[in-house]
Amino acid sequence: MNIAILGFGTVGTGVYEIIKKASRQTTNLSVKKILIRKNKKAELPEMTDSIEEILNDDDIDVVVEVIGGIEPAHQYILDALKHKKHVITANKAVIARHMDEFSSVAAENDVKFYFESSVGGGIPWIQGLERALRIDDVDSITGIFNGTSNFILDQMKKTGRSFSDVLLNAQQLGYAEADPSADIDGLDVANKLCISADIAYDIFVTPNDNLPIFGIRNISEEDIAHFTSKNLTVKLMGKSHQLGNEFDYVVEPTLCKAEAIEANVPDNYNVISLHGNTIGTLKFMGQGAGQFPTANAVIQDILDIYQEKEHLRREFHSNLKFNANLTKSDYVVRSEIDVADIFADYQPETRNDYLMVHDVPVGTMHNLMKDVLKKDELAFMASVPAEGGVL
Amino acid sequence: MNIAILGFGTVGTGVYEIIKKASRQTTNLSVKKILIRKNKKAELPEMTDSIEEILNDDDIDVVVEVIGGIEPAHQYILDALKHKKHVITANKAVIARHMDEFSSVAAENDVKFYFESSVGGGIPWIQGLERALRIDDVDSITGIFNGTSNFILDQMKKTGRSFSDVLLNAQQLGYAEADPSADIDGLDVANKLCISADIAYDIFVTPNDNLPIFGIRNISEEDIAHFTSKNLTVKLMGKSHQLGNEFDYVVEPTLCKAEAIEANVPDNYNVISLHGNTIGTLKFMGQGAGQFPTANAVIQDILDIYQEKEHLRREFHSNLKFNANLTKSDYVVRSEIDVADIFADYQPETRNDYLMVHDVPVGTMHNLMKDVLKKDELAFMASVPAEGGVL
Repeated sequence: MNIAILGFGTVGTGVYEIIKKASRQTTNLSVKKILIRKNKKAELPEMTDSIEEILNDDDIDVVVEVIGGIEPAHQYILDALKHKKHVITANKAVIARHMDEFSSVAAENDVKFYFESSVGGGIPWIQGLERALRIDDVDSITGIFNGTSNFILDQMKKTGRSFSDVLLNAQQLGYAEADPSADIDGLDVANKLCISADIAYDIFVTPNDNLPIFGIRNISEEDIAHFTSKNLTVKLMGKSHQLGNEFDYVVEPTLCKAEAIEANVPDNYNVISLHGNTIGTLKFMGQGAGQFPTANAVIQDILDIYQEKEHLRREFHSNLKFNANLTKSDYVVRSEIDVADIFADYQPETRNDYLMVHDVPVGTMHNLMKDVLKKDELAFMASVPAEGGVL
Repeated sequence: MNIAILGFGTVGTGVYEIIKKASRQTTNLSVKKILIRKNKKAELPEMTDSIEEILNDDDIDVVVEVIGGIEPAHQYILDALKHKKHVITANKAVIARHMDEFSSVAAENDVKFYFESSVGGGIPWIQGLERALRIDDVDSITGIFNGTSNFILDQMKKTGRSFSDVLLNAQQLGYAEADPSADIDGLDVANKLCISADIAYDIFVTPNDNLPIFGIRNISEEDIAHFTSKNLTVKLMGKSHQLGNEFDYVVEPTLCKAEAIEANVPDNYNVISLHGNTIGTLKFMGQGAGQFPTANAVIQDILDIYQEKEHLRREFHSNLKFNANLTKSDYVVRSEIDVADIFADYQPETRNDYLMVHDVPVGTMHNLMKDVLKKDELAFMASVPAEGGVL
């Protein structure tokens, strides 16, 4: 099976190296072409800067897109599918925005569009979710979907250092990008949660302004110390629930009790959970990023195509409705100014330097926090566990 | 696809009920026959007490064996395979003893022999392990494989009650059997670890007297309280490692630091981990037993057959050698009598009511504990985490 890799960064190199090593069942795979940028020197005989050369090569069966970003990735994926090539991508941003288009163009051209590595890196999450869906309705998806933010929160807790210090350290270690906003502001989690919800609910949702997203940019070392003193650990989590004819979807800092699995996920690991009616709760944990785990997941998709193991067909026929206020939660809010008025309807209580608010519909909470941020741009909030985390 | 279920206990009933509900992709499955015991009243039209009636029914494609025990399950599985029926079983005891025979008879008759539900109940563990093996060598398998013992240890920790009290409670709740020895003495874990090692290393190992197995029968509420005071949690774990041309394998009480994932696995949940060279560490957590999770895993196997998703071929061609002393560990030993002499080679140190011993090869440790048990049949031991659990 002949493969073309578009982009030769961390993940592209990893895919190339694993295939070259030809262990186990990868012996039937061969990298025939690698697309590099215009004007970049071709250091390997497989390299080319011509996408047409790849599209028009009838020997190439599979195109692996690991360029990242929206364009030209979006166009390259469509062109490859239209040239009857299977496409595999790790690019969550482009999938979250265009999964419906990619799925229908793949179906029209009788080729596959797979993306295991886009959510949870090396964790077999998409595969596990699709498998659960063969039997069950999945009525909740929750998890730590972003390794960078988990690394930052874990280091803050372990070292007591400030957010900006730890972020700088993460950037030096290569765990965070120069522009870290996608990771710390929750957009990366939102992309991965959208992709998961697309599959779980058979509906196409894109990250947009209506979705409640709150990141960790404003968290302070004092917040972490206070939560720790109450036996709570804060994690940036993506959460989605389905109930009756509705579903919700939120990305927010979430307090977990010390004994919760999520509270104990270290470093840049991810954990993703699903709940189904007969299977109960399943949790998948592993490296949510990194060269070889992510490349491993790309190659798992290639092997599924080679072994004709079909993934779930996505048709987006569901008529579930998005309701940002489907679930309620208690929250803790920290602000330099008095914001109790804003939360007057939700039994605000001052505790130490924090305001506890109760039973707030999730969408409403995120809207009210936008009002708080207008007055205090450094304000922070986190959801509080239902089973009674005491602050 | 027509199915016969052998045995109509908890899991058999669960399989029947999920298929009857005909959700999602199970609509193509139909239960045609159910084998019940001789002289038992047939309460459903599908029921029969004749195995021959099932074997000779050419319309039956798949036989689900959920009788349990070795015979007649072993014979029924062989007979079904020889009658060209795919066989699915949840019966870890019979698989651990006869996987080589079942695999070769299945291959000879061009049918499948699948057993996802036998290890980890509803956790997609076999499937996840086989998938990892498509690319990686798997060089370690560790986990909490037994829900009953985990429930007991978790309850002892949470309530401070004695082993016998909690065991009685577990039996009343249906979490433990009238004869709990397979669960609390580690034999159930040994079966599941053998099955996992068979797949991971492509070698056939059976639970036998040479395998280091130590259960939790002797643990006291004072042990638990002492470990808790040191921020450690004890779990009954199965562990296997592969290094060079050798592998090991052990079932033993294992101290975990408070922040380890394993330390926080509650109730009757299981967690199973693998480590591979490119994927790193993957952990799978879920309900390791229970009617619907286990039945779900049985039906996943049926759907794999229906959708022609082939599992890994097992040929047992590996020439790895078992070495009980492949790895070393520190241990804590509790005995009413002075046993420091027995461990003279391993830097014995008395700490509170316990003896700490250091860098003991695992097989040697289990042999030495047999000597201890001859003098003090209530003695207890647990391995201590490498990263320095302080007792």
